[in-house]
Amino acid sequence: MTRTRFHQSLQELKERLLAMGGLAEQAIERSARAFSQNDRELCNLVLRSETAINQAERQIDELALDLLAMQQPMAVDLRFIVSCIKINADLERVGDQAVNIAQRVLDMEALQPSGILADVPRMAGLAIAMVNDALQALVSGDAALAQTVLERDDHVDRMNRAILDAALGSMRESPATIQHALDVMLVARNLERVADHATNIAEDVIFWVRGADVRHHAAE
Amino acid sequence: MTRTRFHQSLQELKERLLAMGGLAEQAIERSARAFSQNDRELCNLVLRSETAINQAERQIDELALDLLAMQQPMAVDLRFIVSCIKINADLERVGDQAVNIAQRVLDMEALQPSGILADVPRMAGLAIAMVNDALQALVSGDAALAQTVLERDDHVDRMNRAILDAALGSMRESPATIQHALDVMLVARNLERVADHATNIAEDVIFWVRGADVRHHAAE
Repeated sequence: MTRTRFHQSLQELKERLLAMGGLAEQAIERSARAFSQNDRELCNLVLRSETAINQAERQIDELALDLLAMQQPMAVDLRFIVSCIKINADLERVGDQAVNIAQRVLDMEALQPSGILADVPRMAGLAIAMVNDALQALVSGDAALAQTVLERDDHVDRMNRAILDAALGSMRESPATIQHALDVMLVARNLERVADHATNIAEDVIFWVRGADVRHHAAE
Repeated sequence: MTRTRFHQSLQELKERLLAMGGLAEQAIERSARAFSQNDRELCNLVLRSETAINQAERQIDELALDLLAMQQPMAVDLRFIVSCIKINADLERVGDQAVNIAQRVLDMEALQPSGILADVPRMAGLAIAMVNDALQALVSGDAALAQTVLERDDHVDRMNRAILDAALGSMRESPATIQHALDVMLVARNLERVADHATNIAEDVIFWVRGADVRHHAAE
């Protein structure tokens, strides 16, 4: 395999990862909309998308392994390919969160609403934007953009905490809608995990771009 | 670098990953015990272990990258090294779950207990055994052992569901202990995520051993 062919495959890896990201983001967007609108059809669409996401994950892994098998990839390419493998796993788990939300919405249908839905769609929007920007940072090699993703994670954590507090308050006041309040809380937690995956992706991008590991900078 | 030196480094990678697994398992065991015994000191021990786990993760990633940079690793070695990188990320997140549990136990201290603690230590034991067996399967190249880990995930999911139901029942009956019941439920969820990470690790082991991707077999 020539250098040119190698770089074409690297480009293909990037494009497939973006497409995979698009599928995962779409699944989250749909599951959050299904939640807001209590839409069974949309839930089923999300459940059906899991197969496509899993297939995309496998194809990306195989392509990345093929690239690693090439003779002596340069250090920067090596780190990029390894980052793609890790990011791929995170995107697949973003898809899993969408499936969890869709399954929960299907279970919730018969429940009396607790009236604490307000910020879930906005939280979903923020989490999706974090995933999107983390992938954009990968494509454009933009560590500064990846850094903004890390900073936005706190915002999503605070929203999650606010929804948790609202759900707790609702549970205390209306025991009849405890299950619904709990489901809203768990959906918020799923979205918080999406933001966590975006954070992981952003860390991998920074790791690749800067060639340094910023992941646990705060811990030391 | 000679083949001998390469295989020594591969062995070192294996040993470091096992040591990393030991740290992560210990952190979960301690956080679950801290929960049962409401032990602040144990919580602080878990919080302090995060730095060591993060450092171990970085060193393993760097060692794996060094190995990938060698001239043409054989396909089986390549898959092994890539599996180690993925497993490493899962072990780090197992450590994160321990930290989450320890932080929650510190927050819970002042709360009136809801009386639904029973199965959390057993659930922790099962999740830890899954992580341990998944790593043993890696070391011994034992896909059958890895397969048993996948099967045990359902058991942990059922325990999580049972704790969730018990917590819901408790919430309905005793609004005064809703926060405690919720915390127990969230600890159970953290342990369920540990089992999910063990499942991911087992899938990577099977992927490496069989050279095939069984991850989404059920989905197709």
